[in-house]
Amino acid sequence: MYHNNYTMLCDFYELTMANGYFESGKKDEIVYFDCFFRTIPDGGGFAVAAGLEQLIDYIENIKFTDEDIEYLKTKKCFSEAFLEYLKEFRFTGDIWAIPEGIPIFPGEPIITVRAPAIQAQFIETYLLLAVNHQSLIATKANRIVRAAQGRPVAEFGSRRAQGSDGAILGARAAYIGGCAATACTISDRDYGVPATGTMAHSWVQMFDTEYEAFKTYCELYPNNATLLVDTYDVLGSGVPNAIRAFHEAGITKCGIRLDSGDIAYLTVKARKMLDDAGLTECKIVVSNSLDETIIRDIIAQGACVDSFGVGERLITAKSDPVFGGVYKLVAKEKDGDIIPKIKISENTGKITNPHYKKVYRIFSKENGQAIADLMCVHDEVIDENMPLDLFDPVDTWKHKTLADYELKELQIQIFKDGKCVYNKPTLSEIRDYCREQINLLWAEVRRFENPHRYYVDLSEKLWNIKHKLLKEKGKLN
Amino acid sequence: MYHNNYTMLCDFYELTMANGYFESGKKDEIVYFDCFFRTIPDGGGFAVAAGLEQLIDYIENIKFTDEDIEYLKTKKCFSEAFLEYLKEFRFTGDIWAIPEGIPIFPGEPIITVRAPAIQAQFIETYLLLAVNHQSLIATKANRIVRAAQGRPVAEFGSRRAQGSDGAILGARAAYIGGCAATACTISDRDYGVPATGTMAHSWVQMFDTEYEAFKTYCELYPNNATLLVDTYDVLGSGVPNAIRAFHEAGITKCGIRLDSGDIAYLTVKARKMLDDAGLTECKIVVSNSLDETIIRDIIAQGACVDSFGVGERLITAKSDPVFGGVYKLVAKEKDGDIIPKIKISENTGKITNPHYKKVYRIFSKENGQAIADLMCVHDEVIDENMPLDLFDPVDTWKHKTLADYELKELQIQIFKDGKCVYNKPTLSEIRDYCREQINLLWAEVRRFENPHRYYVDLSEKLWNIKHKLLKEKGKLN
Repeated sequence: MYHNNYTMLCDFYELTMANGYFESGKKDEIVYFDCFFRTIPDGGGFAVAAGLEQLIDYIENIKFTDEDIEYLKTKKCFSEAFLEYLKEFRFTGDIWAIPEGIPIFPGEPIITVRAPAIQAQFIETYLLLAVNHQSLIATKANRIVRAAQGRPVAEFGSRRAQGSDGAILGARAAYIGGCAATACTISDRDYGVPATGTMAHSWVQMFDTEYEAFKTYCELYPNNATLLVDTYDVLGSGVPNAIRAFHEAGITKCGIRLDSGDIAYLTVKARKMLDDAGLTECKIVVSNSLDETIIRDIIAQGACVDSFGVGERLITAKSDPVFGGVYKLVAKEKDGDIIPKIKISENTGKITNPHYKKVYRIFSKENGQAIADLMCVHDEVIDENMPLDLFDPVDTWKHKTLADYELKELQIQIFKDGKCVYNKPTLSEIRDYCREQINLLWAEVRRFENPHRYYVDLSEKLWNIKHKLLKEKGKLN
Repeated sequence: MYHNNYTMLCDFYELTMANGYFESGKKDEIVYFDCFFRTIPDGGGFAVAAGLEQLIDYIENIKFTDEDIEYLKTKKCFSEAFLEYLKEFRFTGDIWAIPEGIPIFPGEPIITVRAPAIQAQFIETYLLLAVNHQSLIATKANRIVRAAQGRPVAEFGSRRAQGSDGAILGARAAYIGGCAATACTISDRDYGVPATGTMAHSWVQMFDTEYEAFKTYCELYPNNATLLVDTYDVLGSGVPNAIRAFHEAGITKCGIRLDSGDIAYLTVKARKMLDDAGLTECKIVVSNSLDETIIRDIIAQGACVDSFGVGERLITAKSDPVFGGVYKLVAKEKDGDIIPKIKISENTGKITNPHYKKVYRIFSKENGQAIADLMCVHDEVIDENMPLDLFDPVDTWKHKTLADYELKELQIQIFKDGKCVYNKPTLSEIRDYCREQINLLWAEVRRFENPHRYYVDLSEKLWNIKHKLLKEKGKLN
């Protein structure tokens, strides 16, 4: 199993602040942090939560080694007592999270951490890295998979990924988002993402003729021969040589792959050649800088494609490669009370939603579809038998009253007193759950461009707390 | 030291092809592969080579474990003999590469591999991943650093990186490209990229008042106090509280950081407030979704900025997040002769430059500047005392004759018979070398938009070989 101690994968300021909390007697003050994001990549209607499993793994393995302490000593800015303390540093707090695969929306807490200040602060960098990376890729993969309208999509991007984990965990996230397979062998070995693959152009070039390359491959892999037909000339040599090789090997369950040229035109021609040769079961796989836009285009033009291989534009989320999850202090305990905290900003989009919260997804009892999400103060109780009044948190005069709804709390407790209490689902379970949950969103929210906005509202109680804090901070400090 | 065996980080087809070469008696045929790229990110005039050190590390550690072999057995597509063979699989070939930090251009071989087919093919995925990722980030970082016109740039992007290596090796590559520091602690510990950092908004929120937060920080870090002044109101509270804290602590070598708001406006006002308070040595650091475009803009507007912290747009190369390096078979040995190979494509941009080659950079003897690169057949000899005729490989009527030039071979031998023969430079040496070599490019090539094209030409001998192959393959197969 691929494994690392990523304790030192932290922004240096987590350590200078940790030393500061330690030295100023604040290290054990209980605080609450929320991880949330602000905008949905690619202008989509929702994102897909992912990365929690790696976060759990990280938290469970936090440990400063002697070598780490020695290194930190050389920075000459940490107290001896603090460095000594780090030797026993562990996470002892609570974490709640929206499970992987669930559609998520801007502003709502994906993850909430309650812990001593020094710990809650310290885990920031890796927590964000894990959630941002995999949510980005799961969200992008889901767009691509939906564009393919039921045709399988394989993730092929390792060679263009941003580092090893970009490839390995990118393949994992792509699978959560709905991809059928990956080219990345290690992601199969370690995470069970089915690995697939056929041949490169170099295989064809290694033989004296294209025909010989194909024939050899069919003999070796009679049950899984997908031949790459664009090394020289797709219709002039590639497809005819493939047909000849399939016939001579007596194979009918087979495939061809195109990695260049005019896909819409070439696949229609190739399909006809294959069908005329009796190879109606031969699949056509295409690749070459695909993404959701090009796939929709290719399908709309009537291309004959059975499955897609998608590389660089998926594994880097090329069109919008940053998932902007942030991690903000939202409350502090003082003498047993929870004191909400807010961060103001000249950019109003950067103002936070304060307090220790819970999030509900509101479903219609009539058709089971998700209507909106609602953030409440952690101890609020909503009576589902009563009508529920929702209002726009900015244009508060816009409101609607729901009846016949049910609520589902989105966050689940993952850590309790530093112990993982979460029964981790398998990767296939996460993938199935993702598909199922996305299907509960309105079609208008699932639209690729200009989707309907899915509301994340604040309860009246939470809204009042936020606006009281805003007014106070607007004049103070 | 952060370390992994990445042998299984390979596209699955590398293994199906390997098994194929093994079974068809081709595994030990000596082949040549080139790694090259086709387009420069962001429309720039050059890219920066990086990632070689990780490639060396990978090659030296290739090893299929018993667990890997067991896993591969479950795929039921590899022969017993092949799986047995994998137990002893090592790289035994030769590798030449352009060292890290050197500016590189489309079409020229960054890396050339000569090895038994099964080995040369197998290393494709990781080789490309290492070179593509780090060259992408080094190139982007260099643009950002040049835009900052001498002001230090710190890399702050770990939390938005695409996976752990995206952060860790991204920081390494950013340092090669000219960044002064990173926020990523582990990159300092393992690669010596200087780590830096101050405080988050949560530090300020943890105290009853902003002033108290600042005062505590100044007491803790009197030699390195950079205070984040935008938690509530930059000019109304942040800067006045910072000034008060600096004064009370008697600190003059200090800094403030702004992470939101109108940077150009706020920094001018803040500078005046600091100067009026006698804090002329106080540095102003800014961050908040910066890149080369915004930095140039901020500077042009007269902002008072001493250094920049750049996050997500650097660590993901957001504006163009894919470095399109490819790895193509260019020759094969047969009975002691080297037979050039070409890959044709309906997309002419995907046609390869065949043969085992060497690349020269041509420098002017008059002013030392780089004039063009020239690809030759590996055994060509150029007499530097004779005029050199260069011609455009597409519009062959365009040519020019050089006198008073000198040639420098760009590739260095890295592996010989599977042993690393390269004397690895330190990371600072690479960084210095990068700056030095970029300064040898014409200013017009270093331009951010619409740079002059830097030519990578083919020798007449190489051009003739390529066009002979094109003609042959145009009709055959």
